[in-house]
Amino acid sequence: MEIQPVSQDYMKKAQARLDVLTKPLGSLGMLEEFAARLVGIYRNEMPPIPKKVVFTFAGDHGVCVEGVSAFPAEVTPQMVLNFLRGGAAINVLARHAGADVVVVDAGVNYDFSEITGLINKKVVHGTKNMAKGPAMTKDEASKTIELGIALAHEYKEKGYRLFGTGDMGIGNTTSSAAIASVITGKSVAQVTGRGTGIDDKVYKHKISVIEQVISINKPNPKDPIDVLSKVGGAEIGAIAGLCLGAAECNIAVVIDGFISTAGALIAYSINPMAGQYMFAGHRSQEIGHIAMLEYMKLRPILDLDLRLGEGTGAVLAMTLVEAGLKIYREMATFEEAHVSDKE
Amino acid sequence: MEIQPVSQDYMKKAQARLDVLTKPLGSLGMLEEFAARLVGIYRNEMPPIPKKVVFTFAGDHGVCVEGVSAFPAEVTPQMVLNFLRGGAAINVLARHAGADVVVVDAGVNYDFSEITGLINKKVVHGTKNMAKGPAMTKDEASKTIELGIALAHEYKEKGYRLFGTGDMGIGNTTSSAAIASVITGKSVAQVTGRGTGIDDKVYKHKISVIEQVISINKPNPKDPIDVLSKVGGAEIGAIAGLCLGAAECNIAVVIDGFISTAGALIAYSINPMAGQYMFAGHRSQEIGHIAMLEYMKLRPILDLDLRLGEGTGAVLAMTLVEAGLKIYREMATFEEAHVSDKE
Repeated sequence: MEIQPVSQDYMKKAQARLDVLTKPLGSLGMLEEFAARLVGIYRNEMPPIPKKVVFTFAGDHGVCVEGVSAFPAEVTPQMVLNFLRGGAAINVLARHAGADVVVVDAGVNYDFSEITGLINKKVVHGTKNMAKGPAMTKDEASKTIELGIALAHEYKEKGYRLFGTGDMGIGNTTSSAAIASVITGKSVAQVTGRGTGIDDKVYKHKISVIEQVISINKPNPKDPIDVLSKVGGAEIGAIAGLCLGAAECNIAVVIDGFISTAGALIAYSINPMAGQYMFAGHRSQEIGHIAMLEYMKLRPILDLDLRLGEGTGAVLAMTLVEAGLKIYREMATFEEAHVSDKE
Repeated sequence: MEIQPVSQDYMKKAQARLDVLTKPLGSLGMLEEFAARLVGIYRNEMPPIPKKVVFTFAGDHGVCVEGVSAFPAEVTPQMVLNFLRGGAAINVLARHAGADVVVVDAGVNYDFSEITGLINKKVVHGTKNMAKGPAMTKDEASKTIELGIALAHEYKEKGYRLFGTGDMGIGNTTSSAAIASVITGKSVAQVTGRGTGIDDKVYKHKISVIEQVISINKPNPKDPIDVLSKVGGAEIGAIAGLCLGAAECNIAVVIDGFISTAGALIAYSINPMAGQYMFAGHRSQEIGHIAMLEYMKLRPILDLDLRLGEGTGAVLAMTLVEAGLKIYREMATFEEAHVSDKE
């Protein structure tokens, strides 16, 4: 399916209304930008408050055997179960934001059998160790993107109009740093952070592993599927697909932190028009995050030193995007309120 | 009444719980700080989600006759009526945040008679033109502070446990810039912005008016009541009082932007301990704002290019402070969720 550009005509109509609301011109800053862009995305002069959902995609990473993470790989399935029981940060913050949580197994190396609440879209049982060769085949990588696109369409049918992205996968900051380096052209050291909290020694080792990953696989920066298959992950591909599907469906998508932004960057590299439907939820503490956001010209909404993932920054930012739309929908105009405009 | 320091013991207990929740250590950044500080403020190991209220204090400024604002002075009472009808930005955003709005006339130059919903605590009918002499007498300035303190105690009795500050007053960025310059020691040009949107010519004029205000009145930086009376405003004094009252009552207070922070700075100068109960809602586009926040060592929660006042940034930030407390209250521990901790 094709992606349409966000409607400039509708955005102009929205700005015209924002400019006669009872406040100094432009004084609600980014909230006004959120409202105008949503009107342009939905192509509706008075869009309803959107039904919200965050997708938390889980996947495992073969590269964990290289010792790049502070947590053992078994934590990925354990946290998936925590999501399903409602005890994780994403559950708490999604409830706070009034968003539903959809947990998707895109490539966890664990057999959950039939478990209530988990959406089984498993493409791989964890990726292969990318320090030795490609993480996935090109066909597997394409399948992860397709599952994300399909979910976007499915949840549009269910009435959702504001998506958030999220991730769970021990080892996935390693994968995301590799993607960031290959696509933005920054050095590995410039985009690699401490993930869930590794010490100096492991941090140096992580950088050398990522350098090895890139030199062995030689991903082609001009071919996003090649990058995703060689140094990516199943959950990252699914996030890329969700971003592309959202844009196809004229649905706004709030991107979470470092890993989600690596997925968004794959989507953007496939079709830059998808970027028009994205809102950057927050600025992560991971140092490589801002390089990817700048590459896509996205300004982060929040900056709260978060570095958890799962979609936590995305759902918090959703509440602010929604606040912008409420301003647009509910404020009185100067005329309605009999307030004098600027002299 | 005395202000107690926020309890370090309770903050430590809170951090101990935050550290065993199912997330990497410290990975929820400022949300964790919000939770720990609230526990320390309330001196309760498991505080309930607080009932929230934002106080929007209105006052007029005699200095408006010098031509320092983009809007005519009549807008102050017009906007008060807009608040009471629920059509202003603060109404929309407070509904979004689940906070009640309390509109207080601290010194509007208009006779509202008996009007439903407005709390009449009028101390002055607008301040005097501070370009010619003091804005208020010392007695009037003290009364504005006392009304804020009294409201804090009254709303504690009503069950509220999280306050927000807000302001409405044409001309009050002029007053706030004067306070910022006198107390932080920065030059007038360093702390003066464009308020509701003045052009270059009026901006230069505004700076020279503020310089005149300070040279004529010679406010004593070591005497906050002197500063408030000579170059302040009634709504700014009331905000200072609310901050002091909140601290007396062991209640957290979220400070809005430039004007509210000038009020908070008066409170902080009276008793620095009050700063421990403050959360800085956002970083305003007004250039002098950050100087005041740095002076009080407060880090702004949001940075959305807001410059409206009314309490808009405060109520949005309240939702994030509350999110921090929900994390603390609702997340599962590693043990409860059977998730492996760091290796």
